[in-house]
Amino acid sequence: MNGHFITFEGVEGAGKTTILHSLGNKLQQLGFAVVITREPGGIEIAEKIRGIILDPLNTEMDGRTEALLYAAARRQHLVEKVLPALEKGNIILCDRFVDSSLAYQGYARGLGIDEVWSINQFAIDHCMPDLTLFFDIEPKKGLQRITANKNREKNRLDLETIHFHEQVYEAYNILRTRFSDRFTTINADQPLEQVELDAKDKIVSYLRENNK
Amino acid sequence: MNGHFITFEGVEGAGKTTILHSLGNKLQQLGFAVVITREPGGIEIAEKIRGIILDPLNTEMDGRTEALLYAAARRQHLVEKVLPALEKGNIILCDRFVDSSLAYQGYARGLGIDEVWSINQFAIDHCMPDLTLFFDIEPKKGLQRITANKNREKNRLDLETIHFHEQVYEAYNILRTRFSDRFTTINADQPLEQVELDAKDKIVSYLRENNK
Repeated sequence: MNGHFITFEGVEGAGKTTILHSLGNKLQQLGFAVVITREPGGIEIAEKIRGIILDPLNTEMDGRTEALLYAAARRQHLVEKVLPALEKGNIILCDRFVDSSLAYQGYARGLGIDEVWSINQFAIDHCMPDLTLFFDIEPKKGLQRITANKNREKNRLDLETIHFHEQVYEAYNILRTRFSDRFTTINADQPLEQVELDAKDKIVSYLRENNK
Repeated sequence: MNGHFITFEGVEGAGKTTILHSLGNKLQQLGFAVVITREPGGIEIAEKIRGIILDPLNTEMDGRTEALLYAAARRQHLVEKVLPALEKGNIILCDRFVDSSLAYQGYARGLGIDEVWSINQFAIDHCMPDLTLFFDIEPKKGLQRITANKNREKNRLDLETIHFHEQVYEAYNILRTRFSDRFTTINADQPLEQVELDAKDKIVSYLRENNK
């Protein structure tokens, strides 16, 4: 693979989605071939799978069923969108990937990081991110940022208890250690412009080290 | 769990589905509390998942996506139908279960038995069958039986090459050895009435040994 697979991770309100788009556009303007995506990424089968997960009528869905469905949608998005872009040598900026499943479902929902990791290993088949930016902010501050943003529609995760978000944060700290070769931490408790500059520095220095 | 979880496995045309229904009815008449099922078993979420797998418009579905979706449907069928029936002390007769995934997708489709086993372990969470009846017939003879049966509508699997069905048969031979504690083999190359009698003997002697 000639391309670079970069994922953005963090708790709600860390600013990663906003920064991913604005930074992606700037890198494109600098001449980089950047693909901005997130699961299910408009992939038809993956969208259908997500439709089942998010259907409010499916109140009886078991946690393991849900984790398998997320892994299935991830697989299809990877095969149809990420891998072809990597083969073309593009830079992929992906909003959340396998680490989110490990943090949210494996740890915060209590299915077990190793258990969720095993089905995701099957799904990704060794295609791990080259670089993962972790946007580090205390969960409470992240949620305050969301509350302050009147334009943002609250999703299911925003409405979880503070305890749940603290569990997610704790999980990311475990993952940062476990996958220290690809994780890099960005202080997200700063004005968004500064967070974006820091993220850009990390990406540019990664690309420089990897001859791009 | 007070109940008994019995699965029926074999290549196409081994007669297992016909026998499962007729034998299930006879056991019910003898006073046993029997639940006859197969995945997705009318479970709404599992039916929706199966709808995605079988949708002919989904021609681009990756093999691993498909395996994860089957595991997700299996999980939900297990949680909503099998486990509650086992808790009630019922006898479950289930047409195909985890071994079919290992044989068809793990081995015949080449994803790897161990790989498919790992995601299914996550799905079933230690709830393995107590007894698995393997209906043993050469794939060629099984397919001849299907061809002779004008009432049977051919499905996707019936239309695979003979080589594919031989691979499936080979896989079952591996699984019989690997899971020899629960696998029992029935000669399915006999008139269906005799195959059914043999299957009944195996089940009744299993139930007798297990105090029912």
